[in-house]
Amino acid sequence: MPEFRQDLTSGQWVIIATDRAKRPETFAGKKAQPEARLEPPSHKENCPFCMGNETMTPPEVMALGRDNGAPDTPGWRVRVVPNKFPAVEPKGAPEAEQRPGEAIFRDMSGYGVHEVLVETPEHNRHPGALDQEQMELVVESYYQRCLFMSRDRNLRFAQVFRNHGREAGASIEHPHSQLIALPIVPPVVKQELQRSYNYYLNTEGCPYCHALAEEMEYGNRLVADNRFFSAYVPYAARLPFEIWIIPKQHQSSFLEVNEQEIPGLASIMGTVLGRLSKALKDPPYNYYLHSAPLRAAGLPHYHWHIVIIPKLTTVAGFEMGSGVYINVTVPEQAAEYLREKGGKADDAWSKNLFCSGRTQSPAGR
Amino acid sequence: MPEFRQDLTSGQWVIIATDRAKRPETFAGKKAQPEARLEPPSHKENCPFCMGNETMTPPEVMALGRDNGAPDTPGWRVRVVPNKFPAVEPKGAPEAEQRPGEAIFRDMSGYGVHEVLVETPEHNRHPGALDQEQMELVVESYYQRCLFMSRDRNLRFAQVFRNHGREAGASIEHPHSQLIALPIVPPVVKQELQRSYNYYLNTEGCPYCHALAEEMEYGNRLVADNRFFSAYVPYAARLPFEIWIIPKQHQSSFLEVNEQEIPGLASIMGTVLGRLSKALKDPPYNYYLHSAPLRAAGLPHYHWHIVIIPKLTTVAGFEMGSGVYINVTVPEQAAEYLREKGGKADDAWSKNLFCSGRTQSPAGR
Repeated sequence: MPEFRQDLTSGQWVIIATDRAKRPETFAGKKAQPEARLEPPSHKENCPFCMGNETMTPPEVMALGRDNGAPDTPGWRVRVVPNKFPAVEPKGAPEAEQRPGEAIFRDMSGYGVHEVLVETPEHNRHPGALDQEQMELVVESYYQRCLFMSRDRNLRFAQVFRNHGREAGASIEHPHSQLIALPIVPPVVKQELQRSYNYYLNTEGCPYCHALAEEMEYGNRLVADNRFFSAYVPYAARLPFEIWIIPKQHQSSFLEVNEQEIPGLASIMGTVLGRLSKALKDPPYNYYLHSAPLRAAGLPHYHWHIVIIPKLTTVAGFEMGSGVYINVTVPEQAAEYLREKGGKADDAWSKNLFCSGRTQSPAGR
Repeated sequence: MPEFRQDLTSGQWVIIATDRAKRPETFAGKKAQPEARLEPPSHKENCPFCMGNETMTPPEVMALGRDNGAPDTPGWRVRVVPNKFPAVEPKGAPEAEQRPGEAIFRDMSGYGVHEVLVETPEHNRHPGALDQEQMELVVESYYQRCLFMSRDRNLRFAQVFRNHGREAGASIEHPHSQLIALPIVPPVVKQELQRSYNYYLNTEGCPYCHALAEEMEYGNRLVADNRFFSAYVPYAARLPFEIWIIPKQHQSSFLEVNEQEIPGLASIMGTVLGRLSKALKDPPYNYYLHSAPLRAAGLPHYHWHIVIIPKLTTVAGFEMGSGVYINVTVPEQAAEYLREKGGKADDAWSKNLFCSGRTQSPAGR
């Protein structure tokens, strides 16, 4: 018998197709990357993101790990550059205007910022295989760039995201995340803010905190856990192996994360991406970071989080039309599979959790 | 310079990536179906939807065009059967319940109906190549099944949709649409209802009527047009070659369509799908029908419509996280391309528009 489940935080209904549910192992290697990814070359001559090819990108806006060298030279560990083909640009003023003569159509110049965060100098070392220290630098770069965007009052939201594998929309193989900062609060986030605000007004609680507490208590959907963060397949997961990473402390904005927590976030991201990669044989995936709008902090109802969605099925007409997702894996089974087949990566990470050798954040925060 | 555009009916912002916009012809044949589709066999022995294989499906719930024969025998023109692997089933009562012990998680038995509408006895004759009479039967089957669902008070919404081509999620090649009826109003439709209601309260008008009037006046985004229906690439199209088909008369529910209009709908659907197929070389696509909730009619603010979205690009992390789409074609250019390269299919259709030989609707409405 299929089952409808409602997500507490979004109000979204999903159909867990228990009758036609697929065993989690069905998805292992289903869309595996070409073998080449498994034994990657660490450097490619024509890759704009490889060390030594710094002139192939627009001038960098930030680099971590390059102690003394000049900008746009080798020696960096994480490097941030403007996207060469930006979806939005920091030009003009983002004022909505009515089109002359087209009274009901509203447009706005495409003001915004589109950056690429190169996660490692090594060509094919994706986040599921980065070491703790490198992963901390990646997280630190997310933090630094979001902080930077928050100072531009034309921008209202910074969307950090990552596409892994061609099927998930990655056009360049070299591991990288992206950030698009917008002059609007995008609709998906707006809806979460509205929904959670109503929940808060009715219950005086944060729905994310409440859901997290339940997930911790039951534990059957947990994928990884440490002192500061929890990762689980949500009760009403929309797609097979969807995973959320969420801070245990109530924080509405990612920019509220503290220096102690960054290594914890790096650790759990490494664990989760490592487990996903091992259990499902390097599937393509997307992840995105949801946070309060820029310059907002301390919201009692909202709670920042990262959502990871492997690209294993095709979103088709029904999902597009209705917004209701049919999940062909049972969330509890997906989580169990990731815990069992995903290896012990987490232990290795946990060991390093607070002794990564980094005594100070790269930016001296 | 990229441009943000806002859709009047959904409030959704899209980014028209004018700087990195692709010429429409870039997409022609990019994801063309295998050659086999172009010269298809009209019958396959092992296809459950082919004429003569009626025993390979669950017993039919409706057939059009079979004058005298018994159910589940050949002779039909359109045949409707329950989905063999349904996402939802008409069992139990759709009452939301709290899980015992999991106070904040809400679920509901997966009550609903999931049907397959086989559009033609011929194995590979997709809607872009159906004749007017056959297309009318397809539209008539949509109508009849929605009407049927509206009588079940456990159901609140009927989602008619179609997946064309493997990349768009079609697992069976034989041309078919699907219908999933749900005990809830799905979130995408709910949002349209809420948004349009607010618009109506503020302006006393239907936002769809207003948008349609502008599209008709400007004409630069029109793809096809007849006495009763208009088809256009919307001003704020989310994806390349997204097309809307909308009745010119204000109607909130598809079930308000009248007998005269059904041939008009069949005609414009044939024209649009034919033009899409010709201009882009049979691309995979999804379409879905949005209508008022079941048993609601005469809503002043809502307006039923069909949305067609070719699967030409990958929806990735940014779109998933933000709900903001980056459209790499300019809507005006996409529409022009469809008008110019899509052939004159519409004229042939128009000719047949009111002389399809059908003097009465198959169900005698």
